[in-house]
Amino acid sequence: MAVVVTKFGGTSVGTTERIRAVAERLIARRQAGDSVVAVVSAMGHVTDELVDLARQLCSDPPEREMDMLLSTGEQVSIALLAMAIHAQGHQAISFTGPQVGIVTDAVHSKAKITAVRAERVKEALEQGKIVIVAGFQGTTPDGQITTLGRGGSDTTAVAIAAGVGADVCEIYTDVDGVYTADPRIVAGARKIDSISYEEMLEMAASGAGVLQMRAVEFARNHGVVIHCRSSFSDAPGTIVKEADETMEQAIISGVTHDTSEAKLTIRDVPDHPGVAATVFGRLAENNVNVDMIIQNVSEDGTTDISFTAPKDDLSRAKRVLAELVDELGAREWLVDESIAKVSLVGAGMKTHPGIAAGMFKTLADASVNIDLISTSPIRISCVISADQVATAVQALHRAFGLEDGLPVEVRLASGEEV
Amino acid sequence: MAVVVTKFGGTSVGTTERIRAVAERLIARRQAGDSVVAVVSAMGHVTDELVDLARQLCSDPPEREMDMLLSTGEQVSIALLAMAIHAQGHQAISFTGPQVGIVTDAVHSKAKITAVRAERVKEALEQGKIVIVAGFQGTTPDGQITTLGRGGSDTTAVAIAAGVGADVCEIYTDVDGVYTADPRIVAGARKIDSISYEEMLEMAASGAGVLQMRAVEFARNHGVVIHCRSSFSDAPGTIVKEADETMEQAIISGVTHDTSEAKLTIRDVPDHPGVAATVFGRLAENNVNVDMIIQNVSEDGTTDISFTAPKDDLSRAKRVLAELVDELGAREWLVDESIAKVSLVGAGMKTHPGIAAGMFKTLADASVNIDLISTSPIRISCVISADQVATAVQALHRAFGLEDGLPVEVRLASGEEV
Repeated sequence: MAVVVTKFGGTSVGTTERIRAVAERLIARRQAGDSVVAVVSAMGHVTDELVDLARQLCSDPPEREMDMLLSTGEQVSIALLAMAIHAQGHQAISFTGPQVGIVTDAVHSKAKITAVRAERVKEALEQGKIVIVAGFQGTTPDGQITTLGRGGSDTTAVAIAAGVGADVCEIYTDVDGVYTADPRIVAGARKIDSISYEEMLEMAASGAGVLQMRAVEFARNHGVVIHCRSSFSDAPGTIVKEADETMEQAIISGVTHDTSEAKLTIRDVPDHPGVAATVFGRLAENNVNVDMIIQNVSEDGTTDISFTAPKDDLSRAKRVLAELVDELGAREWLVDESIAKVSLVGAGMKTHPGIAAGMFKTLADASVNIDLISTSPIRISCVISADQVATAVQALHRAFGLEDGLPVEVRLASGEEV
Repeated sequence: MAVVVTKFGGTSVGTTERIRAVAERLIARRQAGDSVVAVVSAMGHVTDELVDLARQLCSDPPEREMDMLLSTGEQVSIALLAMAIHAQGHQAISFTGPQVGIVTDAVHSKAKITAVRAERVKEALEQGKIVIVAGFQGTTPDGQITTLGRGGSDTTAVAIAAGVGADVCEIYTDVDGVYTADPRIVAGARKIDSISYEEMLEMAASGAGVLQMRAVEFARNHGVVIHCRSSFSDAPGTIVKEADETMEQAIISGVTHDTSEAKLTIRDVPDHPGVAATVFGRLAENNVNVDMIIQNVSEDGTTDISFTAPKDDLSRAKRVLAELVDELGAREWLVDESIAKVSLVGAGMKTHPGIAAGMFKTLADASVNIDLISTSPIRISCVISADQVATAVQALHRAFGLEDGLPVEVRLASGEEV
């Protein structure tokens, strides 16, 4: 008798047939004796249709009203899923985010969950009902409808799992787990059976799109075990949890890549104290989400500052840089949109100092030039040219023994490739 | 500086172009200095699409979940209308029914409003905003989403008007007011400038589809002045309010007709005390909405009981009658679906005893046979054959002087037709 929170995304509930399939899966779980909550997203096409309607009426719609509009998408899904369960003779009850007490701050369109008052879910579970909850949405303490932004439904699921003390939060998706690399690029990529929160966070942050960082962070903070698995099969996926001795002791968990960012550079900035604070303060004010930052050593009293940021933020970033070049008396600013970031992620990195050198050598051997480097205790990221992504990821995956699952120590010791 | 609550139905907000037109109308009102609330329905096609999705998943969906599903329709409309107003540089804020404190009982799909806590609307009006409210929906005291059923948005508008103490509640519709008869049948039908709540209630109850009875009742109970007018023009429509001396002193306000009912008869029911209570109690239990009831005088210890009920309730009614014929030892039951009800409505009827006789004579002269008769203090209704509706309505409209607006006394005195 486990308490299970499941989450189904827009594709999984994209048609009435798929909703019926989700209903059957939930009923089977319930009949097996589990207490079952399902968090669902809007049907695949619905959000786009609503956004399109909004754009027809307003080029820059107020975010409060966008939340009012978009939150209807999940509400449709939960009602339909509850009906599909009723149609099979089982008990289900649907709740909106506000109804189950997903309380958020008032930052419309990307609100953060500040509290979960899950009593209503618990009550319904005690009555034996399958509980259906609208993902992606919440309410401010004074009753405004908010949405949680990208990956919001994953976060809702984890939050509800924390709120009801679920044994596991199962995130159903169109892939069957987290892989050592993107299987579309690396034929030998392997599914990871279990991974720690920290590694999953680094992988999510560096391009593994399976789980949303915010959801993983919430899970880590509240000790929620995530099981990321396929909507289309019953095969086990990837478990994300606190690192423990039962976990694979791989030094490197995976290779990730990300082509969604661009590199921006300000050339010959007069190098005096506070200049970086000015640059990145201004970018933050303009909602440019800066990722990597590199500042060269000063030469002739000037320096170059480079950073990467999502291409989505590029028009704002360019505007800010144009202003800053004038204000700071820099020479010029440059943008390069054809970059990619490849990263190695692994908890064992902390205690294996040879990894970075191995990564750089592997890329050099594959004739991949490294443009920028940044590191965290369990991740090394290199910015390279976008057209060399496949070459780089394949070489790293092979060099660090991810293909055959051999511990990297064996290879490092044998000096085979790294 | 009036406070105006307006209501726009599904056709008026059926496309983004029409939503934009409604926005412009509201902005013009606001700019003229009025405080403006708009209550809107779901976009014309939306509710049907949602119902269709539900039917694909469940032949008999739980009403709670239907309310969850259908209430999204109005939520989409309010967000889009608020955006359309913003796009023109004006301030608007949208609220769902639950958000503005439309509190209802828990009868899902046809909930009744039990309280209106309109503080939030008042606050937003004080801030100069145009307030957009979702019609048709409310919340139970414990936070369940309900819908108000047929005509619910009209009722929401009147309730909000009562809650904020509005000067008028304008119901925009696809006709330009209440007519002395259906203009599709009677070429000379005239728009009524003003009418009392009581007459409007009788007209609505007897087939005038322009305003919903529940909304008119709510308006009467709370003294809300309704202005029923066209979405497509600025011409004044029909004012519905407390009868007063400024009102036209017509004896007859209008002729209505209704072809939505069927007549059912139980033949030769043993006539003992309690038989009518049994019959109509059982019908009520089975949600058959009985309108007219006629019981003949007893003959040989048996009687015939006839009644009319909406054709929508017919399958339930037939099932009940089949049971009752057996239980009561009656001879048989009959159903006639080709009936119509024509009614004369007028407050002056109370003090002019010749009206009923005049109605019967008019119908007789037009060779229309009367099957059942029922009366209220201000209405006389006759059930006739459905294929004689046009003949009957035209004859009555002419005979009672509604065409040229001459007071009926003149015609009665001259003996011209009646």
